[in-house]
Amino acid sequence: MLVLGVNIDGKQLANLLQEQMKEEVALLKESGLTPGLVVLLVGEDSASQVYVRNKDLAAARIGIVSKVERYPETITEAELLAEIDKYNADPQFHGILVQLPLPKHIDENKVLLAIDPNKDVDGFHPLNLGALFAGHPTMIPCTPYGIIKMFEHYDIDLEGKNAVVIGRSNIVGKPMAQLLLQKNATVTMAHSKTKNLAALCRQADILVVAIGRGHFVTKDFVKPGAVVIDVGMNRNEAGKLIGDVAYDEVAPVASYITPVPGGVGPMTITMLMYQTIESAKRLHR
Amino acid sequence: MLVLGVNIDGKQLANLLQEQMKEEVALLKESGLTPGLVVLLVGEDSASQVYVRNKDLAAARIGIVSKVERYPETITEAELLAEIDKYNADPQFHGILVQLPLPKHIDENKVLLAIDPNKDVDGFHPLNLGALFAGHPTMIPCTPYGIIKMFEHYDIDLEGKNAVVIGRSNIVGKPMAQLLLQKNATVTMAHSKTKNLAALCRQADILVVAIGRGHFVTKDFVKPGAVVIDVGMNRNEAGKLIGDVAYDEVAPVASYITPVPGGVGPMTITMLMYQTIESAKRLHR
Repeated sequence: MLVLGVNIDGKQLANLLQEQMKEEVALLKESGLTPGLVVLLVGEDSASQVYVRNKDLAAARIGIVSKVERYPETITEAELLAEIDKYNADPQFHGILVQLPLPKHIDENKVLLAIDPNKDVDGFHPLNLGALFAGHPTMIPCTPYGIIKMFEHYDIDLEGKNAVVIGRSNIVGKPMAQLLLQKNATVTMAHSKTKNLAALCRQADILVVAIGRGHFVTKDFVKPGAVVIDVGMNRNEAGKLIGDVAYDEVAPVASYITPVPGGVGPMTITMLMYQTIESAKRLHR
Repeated sequence: MLVLGVNIDGKQLANLLQEQMKEEVALLKESGLTPGLVVLLVGEDSASQVYVRNKDLAAARIGIVSKVERYPETITEAELLAEIDKYNADPQFHGILVQLPLPKHIDENKVLLAIDPNKDVDGFHPLNLGALFAGHPTMIPCTPYGIIKMFEHYDIDLEGKNAVVIGRSNIVGKPMAQLLLQKNATVTMAHSKTKNLAALCRQADILVVAIGRGHFVTKDFVKPGAVVIDVGMNRNEAGKLIGDVAYDEVAPVASYITPVPGGVGPMTITMLMYQTIESAKRLHR
């Protein structure tokens, strides 16, 4: 297979950043500050178990104190809120993450609102989303933040570029659009109701795909020379992890492209660690 | 002049909505609830004086208790924050509005953060911006909210339409883009760094212009049959109020268009009153 587009190696960049963080955490510890992250996990969702374990491993690698609190599926909303309050008040932890999704009897919005915005390392609290939206973010949702770090590392200029973001979740699509806007891109938010999606995408210099459908974006969606970022994590019939972008046919057309796995995924966890360390420094000041 | 586009009469719609609100306020008063709005005005900025007077007059027409607090240019930030606290605690007032801009020695973000989000009828508090961004708004910035009401009143369908918003302020452009997205439009955020702006705008079914330059948008920017919303308020050399859109040449091309004055402007004040009443009802429950 001839790949003309540069493969954006998210795993390599994540390793590089994690190495830097490890050194920084060592220095912080010498000065008496150990960044701490607590992850609250409700129920037995198997994907969530994997995510939480990966976060725990990354924290350990970097030297962040990490604690996973597991609660039964039957925990009440009030009990979970009380747990969050406990960690809001605990100075050992600078980051609190409630693993989503939550069981249906628990109001997700209420839970996200209960986390101290200063410890909201996922960046999902409305106050943090509002600050991002208003152009002075502190905590940023980790997936789009990781993508911005990729652009920076690979020297991909965004100013005046046409960026199209497919997907409008609060976690990826919407904050991604705001971050691209802050970098002076012209940003189009596309989604399931968008008409002539392929033609619209062909106008993009920067295409971010977070639609959740395996290999949905083919080469017909991509302008020659475009930068293609694939946020998708889908399983194909064979159980293999595949992205939203048909990598093999898009890579020869793109100037840069992220693979799945090994692209956006490792960066998301890395930015979670990064924000935990930044939070520790801020709370310590 | 031959106008093919339907003129969206913001003044007429504002009057209609204000009449309805007047009736509602009369009923609320009978049940013992009088909506109250306090406007905090710092300094002598002449445009601000006009805006504040217009708000006061609209409130009086509708039956909302309205109070204008005037402070000298020299008020300190701490003094202004203490005044906000006073009104946060005052159950007579359901809306608190700090007229912007503020003098340079006062941190605008700090002031907006100090307003109780439940009384933030301008919708500028980060918590309210965050809720809007996350798709469950309560208080919405009044200008884009008024524009959405226009679309509703004139039965302009937004789903699947290409909407282009020029201008990315926190008060107009960014919240407008979110509201259009919630109506399932495909939304492009354009601004001063956008390349080939006219060509981009010619793809828009819905074009919202909030760029602050008199008659900047000419017919070359407009696809035949597009809906054109003009948020501009500029003075030309003769001192006449003009919009960002060259109305006379664009109107024959558009399907709908707002004039300046008499378009978006009257709707902004109307939505401020609307949110004050809604806030009173919510706080009363």
